[in-house]
Amino acid sequence: MSTPLRLGIAGLGTVGTGVIKIIQTHAALLTGRTGRPVTVSAVSARTRDKDRGIDLSGYDWEDDPVALATRDDVDVFVELMGGSDGPAKAAVEAAIAAGKDVVTANKAMLAIHGQALAEAAEAAGCVIRFEAAVTGGIPVVKALTEGLAGNQTLRVMGVMNGTCNYILTRMESTGLPYETVFDEADRLGYLEADPTLDVGGIDAAHKLSLLAAIAFGTRVAFDKIELEGIERISIDDIRHAADMGFRIKLLGVAQMTGRGLEQRMSPCLVPADSPLGRLENAMNMVVLEGDSAGQIVLQGAGAGEGPTASAVMSDVLDIARGFRVSTFGRPASGLERPVPAKATAAAPYYLRMELDDKPGALAKVATVLGESGISIDRMRQYRHSDTTAPVLIVTHRTTRDALDHALAGFAATGVVPGSPVAIRIESV
Amino acid sequence: MSTPLRLGIAGLGTVGTGVIKIIQTHAALLTGRTGRPVTVSAVSARTRDKDRGIDLSGYDWEDDPVALATRDDVDVFVELMGGSDGPAKAAVEAAIAAGKDVVTANKAMLAIHGQALAEAAEAAGCVIRFEAAVTGGIPVVKALTEGLAGNQTLRVMGVMNGTCNYILTRMESTGLPYETVFDEADRLGYLEADPTLDVGGIDAAHKLSLLAAIAFGTRVAFDKIELEGIERISIDDIRHAADMGFRIKLLGVAQMTGRGLEQRMSPCLVPADSPLGRLENAMNMVVLEGDSAGQIVLQGAGAGEGPTASAVMSDVLDIARGFRVSTFGRPASGLERPVPAKATAAAPYYLRMELDDKPGALAKVATVLGESGISIDRMRQYRHSDTTAPVLIVTHRTTRDALDHALAGFAATGVVPGSPVAIRIESV
Repeated sequence: MSTPLRLGIAGLGTVGTGVIKIIQTHAALLTGRTGRPVTVSAVSARTRDKDRGIDLSGYDWEDDPVALATRDDVDVFVELMGGSDGPAKAAVEAAIAAGKDVVTANKAMLAIHGQALAEAAEAAGCVIRFEAAVTGGIPVVKALTEGLAGNQTLRVMGVMNGTCNYILTRMESTGLPYETVFDEADRLGYLEADPTLDVGGIDAAHKLSLLAAIAFGTRVAFDKIELEGIERISIDDIRHAADMGFRIKLLGVAQMTGRGLEQRMSPCLVPADSPLGRLENAMNMVVLEGDSAGQIVLQGAGAGEGPTASAVMSDVLDIARGFRVSTFGRPASGLERPVPAKATAAAPYYLRMELDDKPGALAKVATVLGESGISIDRMRQYRHSDTTAPVLIVTHRTTRDALDHALAGFAATGVVPGSPVAIRIESV
Repeated sequence: MSTPLRLGIAGLGTVGTGVIKIIQTHAALLTGRTGRPVTVSAVSARTRDKDRGIDLSGYDWEDDPVALATRDDVDVFVELMGGSDGPAKAAVEAAIAAGKDVVTANKAMLAIHGQALAEAAEAAGCVIRFEAAVTGGIPVVKALTEGLAGNQTLRVMGVMNGTCNYILTRMESTGLPYETVFDEADRLGYLEADPTLDVGGIDAAHKLSLLAAIAFGTRVAFDKIELEGIERISIDDIRHAADMGFRIKLLGVAQMTGRGLEQRMSPCLVPADSPLGRLENAMNMVVLEGDSAGQIVLQGAGAGEGPTASAVMSDVLDIARGFRVSTFGRPASGLERPVPAKATAAAPYYLRMELDDKPGALAKVATVLGESGISIDRMRQYRHSDTTAPVLIVTHRTTRDALDHALAGFAATGVVPGSPVAIRIESV
């Protein structure tokens, strides 16, 4: 029998508990697959006295995750505490300094400190693995880093936050407004303590930044993502989109263009009959496009105890098998900062605005579009009982720059009160 | 610079050509990702004088694939010749005997000789990798072997033959009969030289047997698959299924039950609005169900130069990175023959039969079903101008044994000429 691979697990929330359940119930299976037993030496969490439904009596307890991470009887430090800084980062840094491999589900930490941590791990000869940080149980980090390693990546897209997808699909199926469904998601426990992480798109953007780094061989550039949440999406937008054969998704897109790396996480219209358009409830989906492989679609549960624990174990078992791969798929020391590019590829846009109910108002809007070089594909003005009328415009393909020009122009007309909603129609 | 990983490539059809294109065009990318260059020492094919659109002048030529496989300057033997026996098998055996790693796209060879080859590789300390053998560019072998390694697999399902999916979806979209669409697929070059491999389900069953071995830790048992092709599916079946909200797919299912390993490759009805039901044209889709990860859906191109070459390169680059994994994810010497089980899980079935246009005929059929313990969910008799009437029955959940009893009973009634079509309705 080979020597066991010994884990130190910091964080015993649902994911940590799930990992321990797998190790306890599937010991023979795991050993059969990797050739060596996976054991737990010690654990750490904020609260020791709490019934987690698992037997922790066989493991040492450490109050301090740094102490846990550096124990002699720990080969792999499993960081499941969360938080971009603080104890999680300190413990991961300590683990690396002590020569331990790291498995983490911490997308915020890697999105912000990924480059520094990857360089530290490289210098120390350690690996950092993070399958669980991106779309839970879907093995997308592996698919991109290894499965498509022979491809030049053309584009990475995806719905990477289940809570947002739940809210958007639930709005459509019930006709309820955003605020009501948001409250419902909150009651169901779907929202982070700071809900902006979900509905503001930050959590999904963390994930996108990690995939983009792997896909394009650049440093993680979370701060360069064009970010827009779903807070302004109204039930009207969802209905109008559906009328035209689209669905609204919080969609992440990363692609390398001639002008640089384009990264966006924002609401987009996608065809209702596309795989992304059909994605229901809290599911996640990632679409990887390679120059040889073509389009690979991966779908699964993006969160939850079982799926996320499964992803953690995938990384642990790879380490048990002796697989060593650079954090972002290439040596960290050679990664360069990407040149960030604003969405350069032209696309059609969906525009919704309120228009003053005055003669000539629509002509002014149309003139602004024409002067911005934007032509109109479809336009609808809806019935109204107010002093303003809702107007809906789908443009032909245009650039974001032209669109921004038009949006500024609308404001100057004096007949468009408030701020128009502009949503890109993504070709998927 | 690390030492290069040197390939010997046998077989220069579309896949072999695609592999060489990737190596020639992406040299820096591949080296960046794995830390070592990937080079080609020598190649082999049936015909030397043929313009393949690539420059082979830098590689030695071997007429004999065995000589190629055993060259001193070859680290990895890439077998892309095909055929379960003959030169492909001889060359792979020679490669292993010479201590070379093997990458192959040869599903037929592995479905039949996989256990023996895996044992030989294990004894010699070599690896055999075969991502390209299963659903082309979709990294499903990797997802199952590594991504879901922490899971007990519950079920593996999939549409694994693009040609069959093309024929079935094309029949539905055009209303053309099987024979016409089959000829069309033939003209498009979608069919194997022996089309039974495709439409008889054999090619897809090869793939299923490989995934089942990984999923359930058993020896490959291709000969134990319940196999039925799509040759008997009529345009009427497709229309009737669509009327009831289903689509007919050539579906592979493998699951471990209390009675043993169930493996089937056969036409099934699946809900039209499920991911499998929506799969169009020549695409492939595999659904992996793990006890922790839940349902993971993977979709992509299942064949073609680029996708298959991408999968070959995934294996090559894993080897370049030093990843060593047993052929079927566990040591071959420990794998046992599975106990084959007939489809044990009860399911509803779709039945279509011709019924003599005589008083009491339908009563006889209904009586047979009742005596077999099968209750009827829906029944339709269609208008007809013949001496027989088409009758369609959807049963409630029943076992295959009960169904076989009923099918025998129909024959004995004397009012059911010909052989009824029975298609399982799979819950996906």
